[in-house]
Amino acid sequence: MKVVGLIAEYNPFHNGHLYHLLESKKITKSDYSIAVMSGNFLQRGEPALVDKWTRAKMAIDNGIDLVIELPLIYACQSAEFFAFGSVKILDSLGIINSICFGSESGDIQSLDYIAEILYEEPEAYKKYLKSHLDQGLSYPKAREQALTKYLKEFADLDFSNIEEIISSPNNILSIEYLKSLKKIKSNIRPFTLKRIKSNYHDKKLTGTISSATAIREQLIRNPVLENIKHTVPEATYTHLVNFYKEHNGFNSLENYSIILLYLLRNSSSSILKNIVDVTEGLDNRIIDCSSKYNDISDILECVNTKRYTITRLRRILIHLLLNIDKKNINFLQSYGPQYIRVLGANTNGIYLLKEMKKTCSLPIITKFADYKKFNNDILNKMIEIDKKATDIYSLGLNKGKMNLDYLTSPYIIST
Amino acid sequence: MKVVGLIAEYNPFHNGHLYHLLESKKITKSDYSIAVMSGNFLQRGEPALVDKWTRAKMAIDNGIDLVIELPLIYACQSAEFFAFGSVKILDSLGIINSICFGSESGDIQSLDYIAEILYEEPEAYKKYLKSHLDQGLSYPKAREQALTKYLKEFADLDFSNIEEIISSPNNILSIEYLKSLKKIKSNIRPFTLKRIKSNYHDKKLTGTISSATAIREQLIRNPVLENIKHTVPEATYTHLVNFYKEHNGFNSLENYSIILLYLLRNSSSSILKNIVDVTEGLDNRIIDCSSKYNDISDILECVNTKRYTITRLRRILIHLLLNIDKKNINFLQSYGPQYIRVLGANTNGIYLLKEMKKTCSLPIITKFADYKKFNNDILNKMIEIDKKATDIYSLGLNKGKMNLDYLTSPYIIST
Repeated sequence: MKVVGLIAEYNPFHNGHLYHLLESKKITKSDYSIAVMSGNFLQRGEPALVDKWTRAKMAIDNGIDLVIELPLIYACQSAEFFAFGSVKILDSLGIINSICFGSESGDIQSLDYIAEILYEEPEAYKKYLKSHLDQGLSYPKAREQALTKYLKEFADLDFSNIEEIISSPNNILSIEYLKSLKKIKSNIRPFTLKRIKSNYHDKKLTGTISSATAIREQLIRNPVLENIKHTVPEATYTHLVNFYKEHNGFNSLENYSIILLYLLRNSSSSILKNIVDVTEGLDNRIIDCSSKYNDISDILECVNTKRYTITRLRRILIHLLLNIDKKNINFLQSYGPQYIRVLGANTNGIYLLKEMKKTCSLPIITKFADYKKFNNDILNKMIEIDKKATDIYSLGLNKGKMNLDYLTSPYIIST
Repeated sequence: MKVVGLIAEYNPFHNGHLYHLLESKKITKSDYSIAVMSGNFLQRGEPALVDKWTRAKMAIDNGIDLVIELPLIYACQSAEFFAFGSVKILDSLGIINSICFGSESGDIQSLDYIAEILYEEPEAYKKYLKSHLDQGLSYPKAREQALTKYLKEFADLDFSNIEEIISSPNNILSIEYLKSLKKIKSNIRPFTLKRIKSNYHDKKLTGTISSATAIREQLIRNPVLENIKHTVPEATYTHLVNFYKEHNGFNSLENYSIILLYLLRNSSSSILKNIVDVTEGLDNRIIDCSSKYNDISDILECVNTKRYTITRLRRILIHLLLNIDKKNINFLQSYGPQYIRVLGANTNGIYLLKEMKKTCSLPIITKFADYKKFNNDILNKMIEIDKKATDIYSLGLNKGKMNLDYLTSPYIIST
């Protein structure tokens, strides 16, 4: 039995994701696939277009065997923590042989070489990093430039295209996955697939493989579902149509505009300083911009600098919205993931769950209310944040209900 | 020189208000009129249809000589505190000879007789009140029944219609005005005008005098301004049209639905208990209902009982929204009003302001930024709540700006 692990947001599950699933199983020679998927709020600091159960349905109906939720304290974080939470969960299942992630480079050897440097942090690299940070560069930019210098000086592989490698978002994530595998000394074998046709940030709908960003943009601005039909598998389309029928729209950060304005304008420097990623000076910058503009995107643009990227700022907004502070997040993250929360499974997935009972190092939660049975205070706090996130996610939707974590069963189908 | 004081919300200034102004000047034989008017949030626990400056414009353009703002800590309170703040402000001006308020009864003698009982609280009355409260009646209901009993037993006037008198909202307010005059031992002479044609809570638009409630209902549900044109003076109509053009709508509690849902669902019993009027048990009732319904009016209906009236519940929501707690309100109220904030004046009003420099016992603020000059910490805290209320009021409007208190001058016209 061979199982491949995938890390995804499926926001929504499109033709590119289907290609990725099929190719991943092929190149890793796997019989089964398990995806660890973000819940209702995502790495880019946004609510998901459709809720986590709908996205799990899309994944299962498109051939993923088992979908597990990535806890919010990892899902809405920078690449480093997002990657660590995802890899650690896949590793803890005890049945994953390989993981396969998309990257712009498609070359596992060079990505792993870079990951090794970032993991080991040789002295020369550390020196370069510090000097770039001192120049006022954002952490990702400083890291990019330090790596470039280091590789040019010391690498035995050809890194003539290094700038390109380490400035591409999926390469960055891939490197973090590889770093995390090293950190936890995992036996999982990493693979990468070169991403095809569409760029990550591409907003135009092109051909049958479009970026999730382009699809979302289309669905939020002008929700004529027919327009994106050619970019997603049929199962996704059906679930999108049903979700749209129920809520008369999709979710987006804009649906929280008035709450965010309210929170920002009633925030103090001391509240903001307690939020993850709010470093010295950013608190006052946010307060100042919030009093000048009435629109969240105008506020973000006002705060945005080289050092404070829009994605980072959006994640700060989500943490403000969810009212989770730095101390709490750091404390919980220090324990690592505490549970395996099942969102969906097909017949194969049910079989995998049975196997996992023998191998998995974390409690498996299929019925939400069961979480209290484990008498684990850290687990409780971590999963209650997921519940709170769902309740606040519902606020952004027409007819959004409370307590969906208690009310919704995982999506189980027999195949 | 004779000056009549009026107490109003002008939400919006309609034909009934104009009639009230003209009749008040006539029966009190006054040359001048001064209105103390609620700011952006009102006694019924709602944001005003249009902001306080627009409502001041309506009042001035319809013949009021001077408009003064009632601080939020009095404006969004039960009749007792609303009345006290208003009467105290009018009294502190030092130039008011009479006040004239509308009432359903129109009989100042019987209203004043009742006010005297409520102010003096004779033993027999107190006993009746306690026994009705113990039965679980709301305070207004218990007071109504205790008064009825007391008057039937002791009064020398004819009080055969007492139930009718003390269950009518404008009589209740009138009694509170009279009680406040007694409390502060004011020399101002009270007058009352019998309200004509329309009932306070009447939602239908009838003839040329309609209730403000009916007019608001019409403007919020179906903002065709032509439909209410016959119920308001021309000046009001013009200002309503301009406001609508600027904001593409009017303000209402519904505009805060998502913020209120967010706040309610993230509230704890201990947060709610700190809000004015949240008595034992109401906190949990609110939390429970908030998790069951997605709509503020459904939540209010769920919480509503004999004891907890909808108006009281809406005021609780406004205090939650403005994040002002009981302790703070009680502390500030214990000092009484601290400033005379001018929102508008005509040539007569400017003359009155000059006269008041010799007579007024409180600092007069025409330019908002000047408030700090008085070096009065209580004044600062009280007026900063008005500023905060304006900023949150703006959130409910399309293109609502921050810091309007600093940016907007009083409406001054020469007549």
